[in-house]
Amino acid sequence: MCQLLGMNGNTPTDIVFSFTGFATRADEHQDGFGIAFFEGAGLRLFVDAQSARQSPVADMVRRYPIRSKHVIAHIRKATQGRIALENTHPFVRELWGRYWAFAHNGNLVDYAPRLHASFHPVGDTDSERAFCWLMQELSKAHARMPSVDELTATLRELVPQIAAHGNFNFLLSQGEALWAHCSTELHWLERSHPFGTARLADEDLSVDFGALTSRDDRVALVATQPLTTDEHWQAFGAGELRVFVEGRSR
Amino acid sequence: MCQLLGMNGNTPTDIVFSFTGFATRADEHQDGFGIAFFEGAGLRLFVDAQSARQSPVADMVRRYPIRSKHVIAHIRKATQGRIALENTHPFVRELWGRYWAFAHNGNLVDYAPRLHASFHPVGDTDSERAFCWLMQELSKAHARMPSVDELTATLRELVPQIAAHGNFNFLLSQGEALWAHCSTELHWLERSHPFGTARLADEDLSVDFGALTSRDDRVALVATQPLTTDEHWQAFGAGELRVFVEGRSR
Repeated sequence: MCQLLGMNGNTPTDIVFSFTGFATRADEHQDGFGIAFFEGAGLRLFVDAQSARQSPVADMVRRYPIRSKHVIAHIRKATQGRIALENTHPFVRELWGRYWAFAHNGNLVDYAPRLHASFHPVGDTDSERAFCWLMQELSKAHARMPSVDELTATLRELVPQIAAHGNFNFLLSQGEALWAHCSTELHWLERSHPFGTARLADEDLSVDFGALTSRDDRVALVATQPLTTDEHWQAFGAGELRVFVEGRSR
Repeated sequence: MCQLLGMNGNTPTDIVFSFTGFATRADEHQDGFGIAFFEGAGLRLFVDAQSARQSPVADMVRRYPIRSKHVIAHIRKATQGRIALENTHPFVRELWGRYWAFAHNGNLVDYAPRLHASFHPVGDTDSERAFCWLMQELSKAHARMPSVDELTATLRELVPQIAAHGNFNFLLSQGEALWAHCSTELHWLERSHPFGTARLADEDLSVDFGALTSRDDRVALVATQPLTTDEHWQAFGAGELRVFVEGRSR
């Protein structure tokens, strides 16, 4: 199964710590990885069709502290679509003058939505088809960028139509909010003052967040499985859609 | 002034050699850089709002031999738009299920095209506005991906309408062909068998292409200024649009 990792903060935060633990899981997920960082309206997308264990791109991401308020990362275990760069998540499109990034974990069966507008898949995954359909339907529902609450309301109508086709755990962001939907497995966590020490579940490494953060910093993390052993990760319910803004779940 | 570098080959070629010479020019161009590599239909885009001299991303690109048939690179000297990630070229959009990458060198004065369809700028540069307008007009001119020759014919109608507003040197690719347009300064070169030794104009470094290539390899390079001192670079004429396919100028 693929692995998802999302971060939403109220201040630009580097994700090196979390990505180190996340990339460790790539042993079983050899079919590519990708990570999207929003910096204001701008977006950096690093993708590689090789495993995050071996990729020089993943190595750079682990060592280069890119500070971002919204991050979406994905490690791929191919279910549909060849192992190829165009099938590597996150996928990105522009809508209403903002970039949107999307990553999916799961498998949609017989999912062939009617794509009659301006969003078409480049690769051949169920995931990119679902993303293009979401973008198409959002663009039809709103003439310009609506508020986060309005977007959430529209997504609550759209997402179940896709989720009916199979497992649809996903992360979505346009650089202002992070939406996370769970079909089968997804966990989330809020970190805020006072920050404690967090120990990675997969590696013998811990970081004292108290020393790295200020009183007002808040960050929310979303991951397929809890990344740390000594923090209070909460499981999403099946069919639950959450939106994170400024490091908080709404 | 910004610097453009494009490559179009008939076989996936690594661009480490050319990018080393190109990045050297970044001393005067401190406002960001970007490079887009097509791998099949997939695209890798590396952008950084710091100079290519200092960026860890540029450092990785110089050391990681990514093999690609179509590459577009850009070093930015800001004329319009702040120094920010969202204003860093190349820009990317999806049209007809393919990614399109675009980089511009020049300055368009009072250029505010009507963008009434599905392509809107995220940043605030004249360049991204021009790219969005090109995508919009291409999408109106053709219902699906036409042939390279048809696209070239359409671009010959569209490009002069933008170029009337100022300097419009650009590179454009959808992973099948590389289009290059010159308003003021652009050079091109074809390399094919027998490959000689090329010496970079900016660094004391040379590479014997004969040892690295096979008989059938062909590659075309387009750059603002010639990158090497001992090869036959040809200057574009003002208003000239060229298309490169499989390493050859058509």
